[in-house]
Amino acid sequence: MSDRPLRDLLAAFASSDPTPGGGSASAVASAIGASLLTMVASLPKTRSSSDEDRSALAAARQALTGITHQLTEAIDNDSLAYDGVVAAYKLPKASEPEQAARKAAIQRALRSATDVPLGVVRLSVLALREAAAVAAHGHRAAASDVGVAVALLSAGARGARLNVDINLGSLNDGSYAEAVKVESAGLASEAAELAAAAEASLR
Amino acid sequence: MSDRPLRDLLAAFASSDPTPGGGSASAVASAIGASLLTMVASLPKTRSSSDEDRSALAAARQALTGITHQLTEAIDNDSLAYDGVVAAYKLPKASEPEQAARKAAIQRALRSATDVPLGVVRLSVLALREAAAVAAHGHRAAASDVGVAVALLSAGARGARLNVDINLGSLNDGSYAEAVKVESAGLASEAAELAAAAEASLR
Repeated sequence: MSDRPLRDLLAAFASSDPTPGGGSASAVASAIGASLLTMVASLPKTRSSSDEDRSALAAARQALTGITHQLTEAIDNDSLAYDGVVAAYKLPKASEPEQAARKAAIQRALRSATDVPLGVVRLSVLALREAAAVAAHGHRAAASDVGVAVALLSAGARGARLNVDINLGSLNDGSYAEAVKVESAGLASEAAELAAAAEASLR
Repeated sequence: MSDRPLRDLLAAFASSDPTPGGGSASAVASAIGASLLTMVASLPKTRSSSDEDRSALAAARQALTGITHQLTEAIDNDSLAYDGVVAAYKLPKASEPEQAARKAAIQRALRSATDVPLGVVRLSVLALREAAAVAAHGHRAAASDVGVAVALLSAGARGARLNVDINLGSLNDGSYAEAVKVESAGLASEAAELAAAAEASLR
C-alpha cells in the first residue's frame, strides 16, 4: 500500500471493502509521527548547539529510521493478516475434519491479526521513547512538529491497541491472550507517560 | 502531495526540508480518520438494520466525503502557506520601503499559515460530529474502526491547533489573533467532548 498515492489510499480506507481498515490506518499515523521526529532530529540546528545535542539526535535519528521502516511494513501486514482471517472463515465446514481444519486456520489467522497491531503498539512506544530525546535536544522552532508527532504516535498506539483487543476474545489460547492483554495494557501506560514527558520538555 | 506514493510522503516528512511538516501531517491524520468513518457509514450492515440507521449513515457519509476532500486539499495548502512564510522572510530589507513591504508580506503569509491549520481543526471537529452518528448507527463489528477514526481525528485537531498557536505570537493584528485563540480553544473543548461521546456509544 505504501507504493500507492495517498489519494488512492484515502479512497481505499473510505471504501466498504474490509481492508485496509483501522489497523493499517494506525500504522500510517505512527509512521508519519516517527518520520516527523526524524525530520526534527535531522535539522542542522539543535536545542543548544552542543555536542551532547548532536549525538543524542544522531542516535534518535538512527533508531527512528528503523522504526519507520517497520511501521511502513505493518501497514500492508495488517491488511494481509485481516484478509487471512476473512479467508479462514470462508473455508469449507461440511465435514468434521473440515470443521477442525477451519477452526485451526481461524485461530492461526486471528493470532497474526493480533500480533501485527501489537507490533504497531510496541513500535509506537519505541518511537515515543525517542520523542523524549528529540524534544529535549531538538531545535526549539520545531517544537510544534514534535508535538504533532507525539499526538500521532499516541493515536497510532491507541488505535493499534483497539485492533489487538477485538481479537483477544476470539482466541482460544488463553495464556497467549492473557499475556498480550497484560503487555498491551503496560504499553498503553508507558505511551501515556512518554507522551506527557515529551510534551513537558517542549515547554 | 496527495498524488505522491505514501512511501515518498513519509520520506518528505522525514527530510530536514521545512515542508511538509506537522501541519500537513495533521491534515493527513484527520483525512484518514474521516475516510475510516466513511467506510463504516458505507457498510451494508448497520447497528440494528433500521431505516433510521440507514438515513443517519447516508447523511454522515455525504458530509464526510466533503470533509475528506477539504482535508486532502489542506495537506498541500499547509505546506504552500508555510513556504510563503519562508519566502516572505527572505524578501530584501535594504531600504525602508523594502522593509515595510517585507513586513506586510510576512504578516499576510503568517495569516495564511494560521488560517490553513485553523481550517483543519474546524474540519476535524465537523468529522468528530459525524463520528457520534456513525458510532451510534454503524455496524458493531466496525467499532474498532470508529475508535481508530476518533483517535486520528483528535490527534489531527490537536496537531493542527499546535500549528495555529505557534503563529499567533508573531501576528500584529491583535484582534484577529485573539479571535483565533478563542475559536481554537473552543474547538479543542468540543473535539474532546465529541470524542468522549463517540467512544461512550461504542461500548
